Amino acid sequence: MSVRAELIAVGTEMLEIGRRDTNSEWLTERLSRLGIAVRARSVVEDDVATIAQAVRAALQRSGLVLVTGGLGPTEDDRTRGALADALGRPLERDPEKLAALERFFSRRGLPLRKKQADRPRGSAWIPNPVGTAPGIAWEEGEVRLFALPGVPAEMRAMFEGGVEPRLSHIAGPRAASTLKIVGQGEGQVDALLADLYDAPGLTATILSGDAGLELHLRADGADARAALERLTDEARRRLGGDVFGRDDDTLAGVVGRLLEDRGQTLATAESCTAGLIAAAVTEVPGSSAWFRGGLVVYGNELKTELAGVDAAILASEGAVSAPVAEQLAEGARTRCGADFGLGVTGIAGPGGGTAGKPVGLVHLALADAAGVVGWRLSKMGERAQVRRRTVTEALDRLRRHLLAARA
Amino acid sequence: MSVRAELIAVGTEMLEIGRRDTNSEWLTERLSRLGIAVRARSVVEDDVATIAQAVRAALQRSGLVLVTGGLGPTEDDRTRGALADALGRPLERDPEKLAALERFFSRRGLPLRKKQADRPRGSAWIPNPVGTAPGIAWEEGEVRLFALPGVPAEMRAMFEGGVEPRLSHIAGPRAASTLKIVGQGEGQVDALLADLYDAPGLTATILSGDAGLELHLRADGADARAALERLTDEARRRLGGDVFGRDDDTLAGVVGRLLEDRGQTLATAESCTAGLIAAAVTEVPGSSAWFRGGLVVYGNELKTELAGVDAAILASEGAVSAPVAEQLAEGARTRCGADFGLGVTGIAGPGGGTAGKPVGLVHLALADAAGVVGWRLSKMGERAQVRRRTVTEALDRLRRHLLAARA
Repeated sequence: MSVRAELIAVGTEMLEIGRRDTNSEWLTERLSRLGIAVRARSVVEDDVATIAQAVRAALQRSGLVLVTGGLGPTEDDRTRGALADALGRPLERDPEKLAALERFFSRRGLPLRKKQADRPRGSAWIPNPVGTAPGIAWEEGEVRLFALPGVPAEMRAMFEGGVEPRLSHIAGPRAASTLKIVGQGEGQVDALLADLYDAPGLTATILSGDAGLELHLRADGADARAALERLTDEARRRLGGDVFGRDDDTLAGVVGRLLEDRGQTLATAESCTAGLIAAAVTEVPGSSAWFRGGLVVYGNELKTELAGVDAAILASEGAVSAPVAEQLAEGARTRCGADFGLGVTGIAGPGGGTAGKPVGLVHLALADAAGVVGWRLSKMGERAQVRRRTVTEALDRLRRHLLAARA
Repeated sequence: MSVRAELIAVGTEMLEIGRRDTNSEWLTERLSRLGIAVRARSVVEDDVATIAQAVRAALQRSGLVLVTGGLGPTEDDRTRGALADALGRPLERDPEKLAALERFFSRRGLPLRKKQADRPRGSAWIPNPVGTAPGIAWEEGEVRLFALPGVPAEMRAMFEGGVEPRLSHIAGPRAASTLKIVGQGEGQVDALLADLYDAPGLTATILSGDAGLELHLRADGADARAALERLTDEARRRLGGDVFGRDDDTLAGVVGRLLEDRGQTLATAESCTAGLIAAAVTEVPGSSAWFRGGLVVYGNELKTELAGVDAAILASEGAVSAPVAEQLAEGARTRCGADFGLGVTGIAGPGGGTAGKPVGLVHLALADAAGVVGWRLSKMGERAQVRRRTVTEALDRLRRHLLAARA
C-alpha cells in the first residue's frame, strides 16, 4: 500500500467567492505522477487554531501532509505557529536564517520581518530559489510534513527542488503519463479510446483547455510501467498527428524544436491576438534561436505601414479577411527576415461582429518562401478564449506544416 | 458576530487530477449573498472515519456546516453513517421514508436500496425535488448541519428549497471591497495599514501576484457598509497613488481610460516581454480606441530594422541597456504613430545573464513628444515572473506619468 497524501491550503482570501486553490490542483497532478494519491484536501482561514487542527487531523490519518500558504512576512501569515502547535514543538528563531534574511533585506533597503526565520524545533528549511519565504520540512518515522509558500511560482519551484526528491522512494508501483492533443474534442477522444482504458488498474482522465486536450493515463499494479507504455503507444497510434507531445511538452516548445532542428526561423504579424503568439513562443527559454520577432498591427494603418498590407485590399475586403491574413503572414516573413511568417486577423469580441463577420471569425495564414496558405476559423467563447484558442490553432497549423514538410 | 460556515465535499473522484469542487464554489457564492463567510472548505475521500472526523472538527469550530455528496444508494456512499458517528447518534431507518422510496422504485421497476431511508436519530429530511436521495438536516441550539447530494442540480435545488430558508434569520450584515495596488510589497502595505483593520468586525487580506497586490477589506456588523467605506477611504489616503483601482479594475483598463479621456494613443516595442504588454492592453475590450500596435523585436537586427535603434549604440552598449530602451520607446512612438511609446529590453532568463547584466535586469523607457524617460529595474523570479512583473511595471509607469501630467 503506497503512501497517501493530504493537502492543506492556508489563506482566508482563497475562501472568498471566485477563488480557486490552484496550488492543490497542481500538487495533485505532481503527486499523481509519483504514484501518490490525495485522500483529502482542504482550504482553511488564516487562524492558528484552525490550521493546527487541520494539520493534526491530517497527520493522524496520512503519511504525507503538504501545507501551502501562510509563510509570508505579515501578521496574517500564521502557518509557522500553527505547525509548531500541531507538532507540539516550540517555535525557534534560526540565527543563521535570520542573518541571511537581514543581509537580503538590508541590501534592498526593505524592512525585515524576523518571523520568517522561525520554525518548529526539529524541523528543516526548504530553500526558496525565487523568493524570500523559506519552506519548512518535518520528517519523523513514516510521517512527512512539508510547508511551502502560497505564491504559485515559489511553491512549484520549492516542491520540485525540496520536496519531490524526498518522496521518490515512497512512491507506489504506479505509472502515469500525459498525452497532449490538439484538433479533437473531448468526446471524440473518449469514443476513440474508451475500450483501451476500460480495464482493471488503468485510469484515464481527459482535461479540456484553450491550449488543447490533455489525456492523463495511469496504470497501477506490479507491471504498471509496461502496462502504461502499451496503453500510451496504442492511444498515440489511434490519435495519430493530433498528439503533439507528452507530459510537460507545450505546443510552442514543440514548434520551436522542429524549427531549431531545421535551422529555420519564425516571425508573426498579429491583429486580434495582438502579441499573444509572440508571447507564447518566447515563453520557451532559448527561443531567440528560432523566433525573430513580430508586428502587432492593431490599428488598420499599421497593417499597411508595418506589415505592407495593400491599402486597397484592406479597404475592399476589410481587415478581417483571407487576403489580409495572407499579406500579414508574408509581411511578417519578409519584414522580420524569417523563414516562416504567421498572420492573424479576427474579431475577438465582445463588440465588432456583423452578420457576415461574426465574433469569433478569425483568418489565419502561414507564409514561407514557397507561398502562403490560409485558414478561415470560427472560434467559440468570450474574448480571452477566442484569442487563446487562436494562438493554439496558429501554432498547431505551423506544427503540422513542419511535420508534413519533414515527412 | 455573524455565523461562519464550513463546507465539506465527499467524493474520492473529486480528488483526482483536474477535478474541481464546483459545489463548494457555488455554495460559497450563495452563502456570501446571505452575509455568511466560509472559514474552511475541504474535499474528503469516501471513507467513514475521514468524513466523520472532518464533520466533527467543523462542528466544533463553526455554527454552520454543509456537507455535499455521499448520499446516493451505492456502497461507496458513506455520508449517512459518518454523520451519525460525528453526531454521536445511532443511524435509524425511517419507516415513512422507506415506504415512500419503495413506492417510487417499484413504480419504476428499479431495485430499492434501503439505506437511503437511514438518518441519524434526531435529524430531519430535506426534500429532493429532482432526484431520489433525500438530504439530512440537524439543528441543535446554535449549530446547524446540512447534508445534500453531490449531483449539482439536486444540491442546488435542495439548498434553495430546504437550506436557504433556514439561514435567512442568521445571515449577518456584511460588506466587502478590494483595493488594487502596485508599487509596494505585501509587508509594506501591511505595516502602513495594520492599525486600521485591527478592530472588531474588520478583516483584511493581502493577496500578492505579478499584476500587483490586492487588498481585500471586509466589514461585519450592523453598520458594515459605513465601516467599510471609512476603512477603504483611509487606506486609499495612506497608500496614495499606489492604489490604481478597486474591485474589478485592471491596470491595463485604468491606463486605457486615462488615455481615452485625453484622446491619446499608445504603442510598444518589446524585446524580453515579446508581445506581453501588447497582449495585456488588448485584453481590454475597445482598446483599439487608444492602442495602435507594437513591435516585437526579439532578434537584435530587428531592433534596428523595425524600431530604428542605432546599430552602433546597440553594439557598444549591448541590447539590454538604457539607450536601447529609450530608442525602442521612441521607435514605437514614431513608427506606430502614437502619442506614447513604451520600450522594454531585459534578460528574462534562465540563461543570458552576466555579472554586469544579471538575469532580471530590465531597462524600460517611455517616450512622448516632449522626450524620453527611462528606468532600470531589477526583477526577481523565474522567466515567466520576470516577464509578467515587467508588464505590470511598464503599465504602472505609464499610469503615473498620465496622472502626473493631468495634475
